[in-house]
Amino acid sequence: MADGSEAVARYSAQQLQDFIQRALSTVGMPDDNAAAIAALMAEADLNGADGHGIFRLPGYVKRMKLGGLNLTPNIRIEREKPGMALVDGDNAQGHLVMKYCAEIAIEKARTTGVAWVGSHHSNHAGPASLYAKMPLAHDMIGLYVAIGNANHLPPWGGMEMLLSTNPIAIAVPADQEPDVVLDMATTVAAYGKVKTAAQRGEQMPEGWMIDRQGKPLTDPNKANEGFLLPIGGPKGYGLALMFGLLAGTLNGAAFGKDVVDFNADFETVTNTGQFIVAVDISAFGDVAGFKRQVDAVIRQMKGSPTLPGFDEVLLPGEQSHRKRQDRETNGIPMHTGLLDALAALADELGIEKLS
Amino acid sequence: MADGSEAVARYSAQQLQDFIQRALSTVGMPDDNAAAIAALMAEADLNGADGHGIFRLPGYVKRMKLGGLNLTPNIRIEREKPGMALVDGDNAQGHLVMKYCAEIAIEKARTTGVAWVGSHHSNHAGPASLYAKMPLAHDMIGLYVAIGNANHLPPWGGMEMLLSTNPIAIAVPADQEPDVVLDMATTVAAYGKVKTAAQRGEQMPEGWMIDRQGKPLTDPNKANEGFLLPIGGPKGYGLALMFGLLAGTLNGAAFGKDVVDFNADFETVTNTGQFIVAVDISAFGDVAGFKRQVDAVIRQMKGSPTLPGFDEVLLPGEQSHRKRQDRETNGIPMHTGLLDALAALADELGIEKLS
Repeated sequence: MADGSEAVARYSAQQLQDFIQRALSTVGMPDDNAAAIAALMAEADLNGADGHGIFRLPGYVKRMKLGGLNLTPNIRIEREKPGMALVDGDNAQGHLVMKYCAEIAIEKARTTGVAWVGSHHSNHAGPASLYAKMPLAHDMIGLYVAIGNANHLPPWGGMEMLLSTNPIAIAVPADQEPDVVLDMATTVAAYGKVKTAAQRGEQMPEGWMIDRQGKPLTDPNKANEGFLLPIGGPKGYGLALMFGLLAGTLNGAAFGKDVVDFNADFETVTNTGQFIVAVDISAFGDVAGFKRQVDAVIRQMKGSPTLPGFDEVLLPGEQSHRKRQDRETNGIPMHTGLLDALAALADELGIEKLS
Repeated sequence: MADGSEAVARYSAQQLQDFIQRALSTVGMPDDNAAAIAALMAEADLNGADGHGIFRLPGYVKRMKLGGLNLTPNIRIEREKPGMALVDGDNAQGHLVMKYCAEIAIEKARTTGVAWVGSHHSNHAGPASLYAKMPLAHDMIGLYVAIGNANHLPPWGGMEMLLSTNPIAIAVPADQEPDVVLDMATTVAAYGKVKTAAQRGEQMPEGWMIDRQGKPLTDPNKANEGFLLPIGGPKGYGLALMFGLLAGTLNGAAFGKDVVDFNADFETVTNTGQFIVAVDISAFGDVAGFKRQVDAVIRQMKGSPTLPGFDEVLLPGEQSHRKRQDRETNGIPMHTGLLDALAALADELGIEKLS
């Protein structure tokens, strides 16, 4: 596999989880919270979300050490009605806030059929799909939208970076086939892909970014001279904006100029907003019948003849599913750069290295 | 204005509405249903949705005359819980079904904060924004997703047209500024734009369509030799697929191979699926404060310096808002081709022409 061939070693999800937990505990995170975050971060790596799992640990720890994050939060429902809740994350790590929100959404949806739970004063929570998938085990569909933690694109036609890649994830359970799980930024490329290209000394294809003249920008080392491009031009801009209004403004969370760049500022409270929707399939009809119908849709898509240059049709989440199968058996491939960063973190914190 | 300069005459929304109502009554639609549909269709034209208002009347009438639509439906709630309902549209005109669904969603959201209402056995309902905007008058946010009524794109990398342009609309109320209303297909170009280019003898830009070799297709007269392209490639495919599962499969409505091409087949029941979500802003916080915050976001976006080639930053729905202001004062511009089609329809039905 592509990700395996470049990696120097593989580690089990448990090894990653243990290391993350050691690191978080050392900076003062209570054990139960450290365990919950570590489990979700390792889960992200298991699912193939390499840019959103243990890769983020040094940044998270830096914020915790500099006081930008509340290690002993009181995450709580601030307002609620039968089909919704607004959660005050109390500046907790986003994983804790969104796990709490997902549990409330699932519980409420049992009664109301559909429930929507938003957050403010949350923080970065890793990959969107982690939370969209939480309702699946309860025979529910999940939707999740987040405000990205750094603005990388202007409104369409503009030059001021007022919007983030505001991602959406939607997870729908199947029967025999893998669940269908979309997890996408509203930009053509996520910013992490730009950073990866720079690390590898590669050029970016046209269409990822433009410069301040509106011309294609293909040198990732000049990324700070340009902007990410939204999918479908004004359409992706429209989605990023509406998701911002729903996940940010509606929840009393930061959006637009108020978004704190969490890669540059580790002390200011980010007031991150997210929301999750749980849809109880049994409210709409027979669950088993629905899942079989999802299987039928999946098989229709995969049965399509392919265009020249394509070996097969993939469903959203299918690549992640394959990576997970590989990683559960063979471990999670880790690159030298990441291992070096984690070794440096271990030294800094005086904890046992990843092993 | 661009749309005015090409038009040969302007008519008031009331004139359009009266003509539509005459036509629908003549083919056997009960008066109250004909009035409701005519009002929504004229509203679409007033909002600038030229491809989704009176333009559709000849097609709708053809379906009604050939028995593909139920003129005297019993639209009803089939299943419900406090925060959701599944509506059986009984093969009614989609406008009637979605008006009914929106009213239920709004009513339920008053109690639960958020409500989601899906439909099956509905039909084409005009522009998505019509329904997403209905909650606005109740200080609610609206979301609407529909299965398109003809498949125009394959899954990403495939060649079999199994997906439609499955649109989404999201409407958020502002205070002093125009409401923010996104209404977009998940393809780069809606199929109507391809048909318009063909009518005008224009070439399409690269990026709208590809042929069966995967190469750009720019001759709109060869549209049936290729496919529409989704926004952001696999991302737009992913959105179209997930929206199809949510608006179609979850509701027991047609999706994938089951979608009936309503431009080619006027007799088969389409079993169209849609859903609408109403989000009560007062459940999340102070409504007036929220709207002022939306104004602030709008002004941030519009205050951005522009890229070369752009005069201003536009918000989703802003062009529609401007068209509406113009059309309320000066009437709705109508082109010769459309006027000819409506005159022919009047002759066919033996009704008074548009005047």
